[in-house]
Amino acid sequence: MRIDLNSDSGESFGSWSMGDDATMMQIVSSANIACGYHAGDPSVMRSTIAAAVENKVAIGAHVAYPDLAGFGRRFIDMTATELIDAVIYQIGALQAVASLAGGTVSYVKPHGGLYNAIVHHEAQAQAVATALAELNRASGTNLSVLCLPNSEIERRAQDAGVQVFYEAFADRGYTPSGTLVSRREAGAVIHDPEQVAARVVKMALEKTVTAVDGSEVGLNAHSVCVHGDTPGAVEIARQVRAALEKEGVEIAAFAG
Amino acid sequence: MRIDLNSDSGESFGSWSMGDDATMMQIVSSANIACGYHAGDPSVMRSTIAAAVENKVAIGAHVAYPDLAGFGRRFIDMTATELIDAVIYQIGALQAVASLAGGTVSYVKPHGGLYNAIVHHEAQAQAVATALAELNRASGTNLSVLCLPNSEIERRAQDAGVQVFYEAFADRGYTPSGTLVSRREAGAVIHDPEQVAARVVKMALEKTVTAVDGSEVGLNAHSVCVHGDTPGAVEIARQVRAALEKEGVEIAAFAG
Amino acid sequence: MRIDLNSDSGESFGSWSMGDDATMMQIVSSANIACGYHAGDPSVMRSTIAAAVENKVAIGAHVAYPDLAGFGRRFIDMTATELIDAVIYQIGALQAVASLAGGTVSYVKPHGGLYNAIVHHEAQAQAVATALAELNRASGTNLSVLCLPNSEIERRAQDAGVQVFYEAFADRGYTPSGTLVSRREAGAVIHDPEQVAARVVKMALEKTVTAVDGSEVGLNAHSVCVHGDTPGAVEIARQVRAALEKEGVEIAAFAG
Amino acid sequence: MRIDLNSDSGESFGSWSMGDDATMMQIVSSANIACGYHAGDPSVMRSTIAAAVENKVAIGAHVAYPDLAGFGRRFIDMTATELIDAVIYQIGALQAVASLAGGTVSYVKPHGGLYNAIVHHEAQAQAVATALAELNRASGTNLSVLCLPNSEIERRAQDAGVQVFYEAFADRGYTPSGTLVSRREAGAVIHDPEQVAARVVKMALEKTVTAVDGSEVGLNAHSVCVHGDTPGAVEIARQVRAALEKEGVEIAAFAG
Repeated sequence: MRIDLNSDSGESFGSWSMGDDATMMQIVSSANIACGYHAGDPSVMRSTIAAAVENKVAIGAHVAYPDLAGFGRRFIDMTATELIDAVIYQIGALQAVASLAGGTVSYVKPHGGLYNAIVHHEAQAQAVATALAELNRASGTNLSVLCLPNSEIERRAQDAGVQVFYEAFADRGYTPSGTLVSRREAGAVIHDPEQVAARVVKMALEKTVTAVDGSEVGLNAHSVCVHGDTPGAVEIARQVRAALEKEGVEIAAFAG
Repeated sequence: MRIDLNSDSGESFGSWSMGDDATMMQIVSSANIACGYHAGDPSVMRSTIAAAVENKVAIGAHVAYPDLAGFGRRFIDMTATELIDAVIYQIGALQAVASLAGGTVSYVKPHGGLYNAIVHHEAQAQAVATALAELNRASGTNLSVLCLPNSEIERRAQDAGVQVFYEAFADRGYTPSGTLVSRREAGAVIHDPEQVAARVVKMALEKTVTAVDGSEVGLNAHSVCVHGDTPGAVEIARQVRAALEKEGVEIAAFAG
Repeated sequence: MRIDLNSDSGESFGSWSMGDDATMMQIVSSANIACGYHAGDPSVMRSTIAAAVENKVAIGAHVAYPDLAGFGRRFIDMTATELIDAVIYQIGALQAVASLAGGTVSYVKPHGGLYNAIVHHEAQAQAVATALAELNRASGTNLSVLCLPNSEIERRAQDAGVQVFYEAFADRGYTPSGTLVSRREAGAVIHDPEQVAARVVKMALEKTVTAVDGSEVGLNAHSVCVHGDTPGAVEIARQVRAALEKEGVEIAAFAG
Repeated sequence: MRIDLNSDSGESFGSWSMGDDATMMQIVSSANIACGYHAGDPSVMRSTIAAAVENKVAIGAHVAYPDLAGFGRRFIDMTATELIDAVIYQIGALQAVASLAGGTVSYVKPHGGLYNAIVHHEAQAQAVATALAELNRASGTNLSVLCLPNSEIERRAQDAGVQVFYEAFADRGYTPSGTLVSRREAGAVIHDPEQVAARVVKMALEKTVTAVDGSEVGLNAHSVCVHGDTPGAVEIARQVRAALEKEGVEIAAFAG
């Protein structure tokens, strides 16, 4: 049995620090690294990539809307052309920085508002898929996309010939139909570290999750997202890893 | 006989237009393309590169300080680390965008305030040289730098193993010692198209320029910079090209 | 009879120029001045305000989403709190700059994507209304809002005690129900200067407009928007003013 | 006896947090509030001002170079015009936000790279002085400037009719001639809380400081800067206040 753990990384910016990347790099197998659009700057990118390479963690481009003030969380109604080019710009910048540390960008995870938008937004989902397909074709890479199953981006990426990997969330509640419980509703976020760890073990071993109504739901996840932005989150991530290791589940990157 | 003509390109930004890139691409052999730090955005970069590829114009990364409001013209006291990483970020972004159009970034020309600073500023000159050397080593490229002769960046780049090409300016006055006449002094800029064209022909054929005091000065230029930001500038560039062609001088990229 | 002509102004940014503000200030009675979020910078704001004061043109704050790259045209899903504070920030900055030229900000016109959003978007319309109401209360100003009639922002502003003025568009087609013809449909924009001028005269004298189906529609506009971003647009604006003056319509600011 | 304690405040930005403003507002008498150029955003500004008003802390505009990525610490070679207008823009924005919380901006403290530059840089010092003088004249305010004694900005501000207040630093070493020990030399920063507190008491009571060579130097400070950006810094600030109170020194704003 094997699963990937991913975490958002490199989200410091200039004099502002965010997250405990040093510790998280020892826990996860894939790092979604900010590319300067929602967070990160060239020097943060470089040191984050160096830490990923040192810890043999796979490098993903955490592409986003251009919105430092909003941390990339706000939907921006970019045109397809603008979004395609912005995605390519960010990936290219990260690729160059990665090359200096002997690292390679192996996948792309859209961030925040963009991640949420392309679950449904047809034009923006197509734009992200097109950007990856064009870049793969032009530069001989094999960038995959990490996304929600049953999403518009999944369909568009597959149609464009871009490999798709599925993501689940360690600390989020699921509905009986396998979607995330809205953050406005009860059960959206699970805070107990042991419970979170047990759920991830179940995701890895049984490919299921217990939904908010108590039913068991199938869940095909190549990677599980854990957080590192607070000391509490890091502790949860640590317990998730320990629990997986205890059950003999290999924690390994899905890509690269 | 052969010389390169280069011009700053892709300096539009969002809804703001600057320069007549379409025409200039038919005149020059090398285009210094803005990378989003002083001008340009991902979509402007893409269309500019497409035009360069279509016209068989060499692609240079016009790297700059991060300063859209100041158009990269103001000195910013960046640390060496910040500057190294910012230069790599910009080149990487341009490389990815270029790959989509079948183009390749072959050289780097620092822009504006950075261009001027690294004539003398040791730490920033070293940073630019280090960035290019590291990127060449890491990704197998052979990026050269286009700069003023007898400058700090020239020495640092050579020491770092980065190929250097010399630039002259079509419309600028020169001192008897071969440096540019300060813009605060008389004779700094030559406005007459015929005179400018004649000077460039002389630079190409005789490797000399007539200084402000009437003396002849040796000038070893691989590339001559022409402007395209006003209709008048485009007309001058056109006459420069015509004069060179009339004299049988080949206009060809120095790099790539 | 009397009507206001307004135009977007001060939309240059750094080294990028847009529009012919010098000429437009002699044509319009109200200038919507960019506040640095979608366009404009402190120095552009200052020179634009100086021109407005010199020409006795009323000064409006053209508040926008924070999006220079998108020129404020893209919807951004800002929270109410973010938007309230961003609107206040922009107005305050413009007020300070205006004070130096002996000018006063008398009204607010939301720009581009924000203008369009708050026709329908309840939370953002409320945020704009709240910002103006709070600022009026706190600093003793009487800032009004210039907007589309029958819009969410109109209702919210009135409920918040903010004075509302109605805007019509000189060169846009209208539906029989008095709304703008979508830019995706035929008849959305009228290009003939004489026709545009005749329509504005009719708006001023008869308070009606001829809709795309030929029917006459009532149109209660305090101000008519004319453009100055191209030489053609400036010429249309000039003809609009001339036609109004010929009919004896006074062109005067609605506010201030 | 009486002295002011000031601290940089409101330096969070978007999703990034910096400093413990809530605690510092209970310690200091003046808050230098970031205006969005080096840190802060409209909503951070608003909540910071609300805390200042609640704690009866004087509000200063912490104006800076436009450089979020560099936190305003890097010298930027802005022209006088650019700097004048940028300073006015920032102050105006803060004034508007302050008015909503019933607060008033009473002084200006240049930040970081700008603070350091205008100790010597004549054109930029003059620009800051001119900005304050013009704004005071135009809007009837009485904004003062908080700066180093014997600095270019002090002279320029006085010549321009702008009131000047002197600042000392609680944790910095002083040379026998009363200037700050360079951060590159030993004794530049004092880390022991008790020692720092004792020095501030001495500054307040005796108007002197013990220099790095053990000599006593006269020091005329209206305000002493304390930091709040780390838990350790907050603890030092707390001890400084306690020591002043124990000695019966009144801690009160110099301005407003």
